Amino acid sequence: MRSHYCGQLDDSHVDHEVELCGWVHRRRDHGGVIFIDLRDRDGLAQVVFDPDLADVFATAESVRNEFVLKVKGRVRLRPEGTENPDLPTGKVEILGKELTILNKSETPPFMLNVDDEGVGEEHRLKYRYLDLRRPEMLQRLRFRSKITRVLRNYLDDNGFLDVETPMLTKATPEGARDYIVPSRTHEGQFFALPQSPQIFKQLLMVAGVDRYYQIVRCFRDEDLRADRQPEFTQLDIETSFLDESTIMAMMEGMIRKLFAEVLEVALPDPFPRMSYAEAMERFGSDKPDLRIPLELVSVNDVLADVEFKVFSGPAKDPKGRVAALRLPKGCELSRKEIDDYTKFVGIYGAKGLAYIKVNEVAKGREGMQSPILKFMPDEAITTIMERTGAEDGDLVFFGADQASIVNEALGALRVKLGHDRGLVEHGWKPLWVVDFPMFEWDEKNDRWTSLHHPFTSPNEEHIPLLESDPGACLSRAYDMVLNGTELGGGSMRIYREEVQEQVFRALGIEDEEARDKFGFLLDALKYGCPPHGGLAFGLDRLVMLMTGAKSIRDVMAFPKTQSAACLMTDAPSGVSEAQLKELHIRKRVKPKTAE
Amino acid sequence: MRSHYCGQLDDSHVDHEVELCGWVHRRRDHGGVIFIDLRDRDGLAQVVFDPDLADVFATAESVRNEFVLKVKGRVRLRPEGTENPDLPTGKVEILGKELTILNKSETPPFMLNVDDEGVGEEHRLKYRYLDLRRPEMLQRLRFRSKITRVLRNYLDDNGFLDVETPMLTKATPEGARDYIVPSRTHEGQFFALPQSPQIFKQLLMVAGVDRYYQIVRCFRDEDLRADRQPEFTQLDIETSFLDESTIMAMMEGMIRKLFAEVLEVALPDPFPRMSYAEAMERFGSDKPDLRIPLELVSVNDVLADVEFKVFSGPAKDPKGRVAALRLPKGCELSRKEIDDYTKFVGIYGAKGLAYIKVNEVAKGREGMQSPILKFMPDEAITTIMERTGAEDGDLVFFGADQASIVNEALGALRVKLGHDRGLVEHGWKPLWVVDFPMFEWDEKNDRWTSLHHPFTSPNEEHIPLLESDPGACLSRAYDMVLNGTELGGGSMRIYREEVQEQVFRALGIEDEEARDKFGFLLDALKYGCPPHGGLAFGLDRLVMLMTGAKSIRDVMAFPKTQSAACLMTDAPSGVSEAQLKELHIRKRVKPKTAE
Repeated sequence: MRSHYCGQLDDSHVDHEVELCGWVHRRRDHGGVIFIDLRDRDGLAQVVFDPDLADVFATAESVRNEFVLKVKGRVRLRPEGTENPDLPTGKVEILGKELTILNKSETPPFMLNVDDEGVGEEHRLKYRYLDLRRPEMLQRLRFRSKITRVLRNYLDDNGFLDVETPMLTKATPEGARDYIVPSRTHEGQFFALPQSPQIFKQLLMVAGVDRYYQIVRCFRDEDLRADRQPEFTQLDIETSFLDESTIMAMMEGMIRKLFAEVLEVALPDPFPRMSYAEAMERFGSDKPDLRIPLELVSVNDVLADVEFKVFSGPAKDPKGRVAALRLPKGCELSRKEIDDYTKFVGIYGAKGLAYIKVNEVAKGREGMQSPILKFMPDEAITTIMERTGAEDGDLVFFGADQASIVNEALGALRVKLGHDRGLVEHGWKPLWVVDFPMFEWDEKNDRWTSLHHPFTSPNEEHIPLLESDPGACLSRAYDMVLNGTELGGGSMRIYREEVQEQVFRALGIEDEEARDKFGFLLDALKYGCPPHGGLAFGLDRLVMLMTGAKSIRDVMAFPKTQSAACLMTDAPSGVSEAQLKELHIRKRVKPKTAE
Repeated sequence: MRSHYCGQLDDSHVDHEVELCGWVHRRRDHGGVIFIDLRDRDGLAQVVFDPDLADVFATAESVRNEFVLKVKGRVRLRPEGTENPDLPTGKVEILGKELTILNKSETPPFMLNVDDEGVGEEHRLKYRYLDLRRPEMLQRLRFRSKITRVLRNYLDDNGFLDVETPMLTKATPEGARDYIVPSRTHEGQFFALPQSPQIFKQLLMVAGVDRYYQIVRCFRDEDLRADRQPEFTQLDIETSFLDESTIMAMMEGMIRKLFAEVLEVALPDPFPRMSYAEAMERFGSDKPDLRIPLELVSVNDVLADVEFKVFSGPAKDPKGRVAALRLPKGCELSRKEIDDYTKFVGIYGAKGLAYIKVNEVAKGREGMQSPILKFMPDEAITTIMERTGAEDGDLVFFGADQASIVNEALGALRVKLGHDRGLVEHGWKPLWVVDFPMFEWDEKNDRWTSLHHPFTSPNEEHIPLLESDPGACLSRAYDMVLNGTELGGGSMRIYREEVQEQVFRALGIEDEEARDKFGFLLDALKYGCPPHGGLAFGLDRLVMLMTGAKSIRDVMAFPKTQSAACLMTDAPSGVSEAQLKELHIRKRVKPKTAE
């Protein structure tokens, strides 16, 4: 029905007859002439209707915003002075000769041709099919499609097979809440929707698939935060007979290609690597945003013996940490700003936020302001200034507590200061974080839990520690981090049955429980499981990052709200009693109205 | 860890040092030397271990089937007379110099290096990760991955956007039973897993996506037949501003490209088109297998006045049909074979299977054998022989009943005879079936139902019939058929609100019911819905057809049994009472054992 998309037209088409289809983005009557901005997936084209053609003009007069039109006309240059440099098609217009109204439109519930600032998201989600008409929304869908295409091509070219794994499956061990599906044919039993295809992809390695990938939907029934959705999409990858350095090189090659092809950005080759310990030490985070030139500095040794218990306590505690964070030009901060930052770190459990204003380094104690100076010997002050590299006009924050609290609080403060103070460098800063601990201690349940998942391989030389000192055991896991976001993570997996059993034991998983949950995986390890490893990327987050979208909902066609509902279709919704009966379940509460 | 895949080696690698990784497919000790067939995704390579290297030889002696090995060695030509022409790598072998056992294997529960005839499918499904090691299974997974790649590339190159639609959604109108998912956050409410993304793809057209595709999982909780699975995969496509002939041309172009690239087969250009009416008339089926050179011939007019009620009744009934089916050389059929075919058509509701053995056409009645000849005037016999084109030695079957029963019974018989009698032509015979009826009469519920789905557009000129004569109303639907299998089907959709309402009325769907079920779609039609249409291909079936797999389970990595269970993971399985409580449901029956 069309010869071109609206957005394709430029001065190379002048004097061509074209046929366009699209929506009325805007109609203006000006000087006895009607201007219609016709919109399609590719952009806008201005169509002009003269009164010379009375019929066509009359039809043009009758159209309203969002009518669907088919237009035939001749492309011409816009009269001098009326070009629109903001529009790719802004040099030309189409003189309309034929006009068909393919469909009408009622007045949309919100304007599509002005900025969306005023429109509530609920409204946008309810009328998602209109919201998606907005150029920036369609652009994101195109972008997403382009991203998956580049990723797939890279993986296909590297010998990966796209293999589908089941959606109706057994509860998985990722730890979040499963969505479950009652079985009709197996009374009282339920499928679980996958939180990830982790076990299946490992079994594909046992099967000899060698290189697997899948862009796959995953499900977690969690309370939703801003960047979470009940269903999300993962680029899932697994390989056999490759070690972690080969896998990491292959994966960063993929991301480099993606950024080069889609954003024309050259990412570093190779990506820098940093141990988990170093990332925590310097940035208080296992996904450091390297665009922010602020770092945490440990000063436990300096403050272990001061008479200020707030510092000396954590400084002497093996699990404690006292860290300093220098903010260049921080003396500019007002009392109120510092108070706000103190509240901010409180969110992460910090009980306070000590600081020193450094007016003049050279003057020592005299050149500084702080209620805590009086607890500090001169030597401590000098060492702290040296270690943090403080200069005149800077401010040094302090955190002192359990290391985990200090890291979280100062790590978050670092990022906030970076943004608040305009310190975030432009560009893309990827890195690999490696050498993660195998386990973290779960205070609440008084046991070790997996930092990644229970199939993650320990470092070969740490296997003896599994029994004697689980906390010291490092894993062969790796996370890819970009600008403070974890793009993906993975690990070499356990491929020997006896190691898997040792890890289960360290986790306090009984043999019977392991058999019940993962019996088929343990069986698979008996029959010639190859060395293997892989990783998974969060596709939605990757698209968000690359498109600069503020919400995960802006990179999905039909997202759900934070209460896990779809405002457009009204899902979830009621089902009939007969249906529940067939599925051998009943509701726990009496419905308020009969069904 | 490897330099080559096993299956890649040929005489171009002679004298190269190679490293291989893989599984022990077979070990033989012969003349003091150990031969190991090492297997990976790509194939087999023969590795030879001499006793010269005592350590390596000892290790080689210790390996068993399915051990995982890493081998280093030099490629050499096999000694003359020991080449294996059946193997791509059969000209060469590797003289093993280093050997590492990467992992051991217990004796697998079934042999992987011999034919699978003896192994029960239950066993294969329980140990799927071993079953998939079989070369023909891995080959199918590779094939499937290649197929989706070609399809995606074609669609990407034609401007289609890959857009994901939700899995947790509202009950859809496809008519099969939904899988449902209880909501935790919305008490007493349920999501449905999609039977297809039909409504979402239409809404993407309303949104202006223009060209959409998705390779997407769909779910139907039906009792499973041999070729059905509770979850299956669809290549889902929708376009705007294109008419059916453009869509069909684009889609057959895709399938032609697929067959050319993957099978090196040239399909006809264009595919033939046939109306639904003609397909039923000539083949008794809306998915005729054109490789079978047998056709149904209507003889209602010839037999309307015979004194044999079995024929004259249906022949005179406007809904009846009397049809003949000629089987070349059918005189060869034994009494028992004919009895078996009579039983066979009984499955489809036919009450009998009349026939005439045509020994000598020229002799007329005298040259034929049949209990029904006595009811037929000479002229009728002559006309039937002419119409069917019967020759000496042929047999003509007859069906006489309601047209639907005759079509089903003789349509199925035609296919069966084709296979039984070796009449199926070699090759690929695609076609489009078009001009479907909009509705079919549902005797049981005494109402019209959609032949496709309620969003299918009627022929423009048949819109007035929606009210007056729904049965005469044809739709703008089209099915792509290949060798008797429906590969895909689709239609132009209704894009005008008033037409959609008329169709709902014809289907006896009340306004309120329509609003409740499809309110958001009806709303969307109000706001400038473009003309659009599309289709969906059954990917599993396409892969089956292209790989010659006998079962849909053979083209899926982890399929379910006919009772919708996964024998490997034991899904579905029990869930805890606490989990059900959170989801506001309970089981209808008391579990036999406490949980």
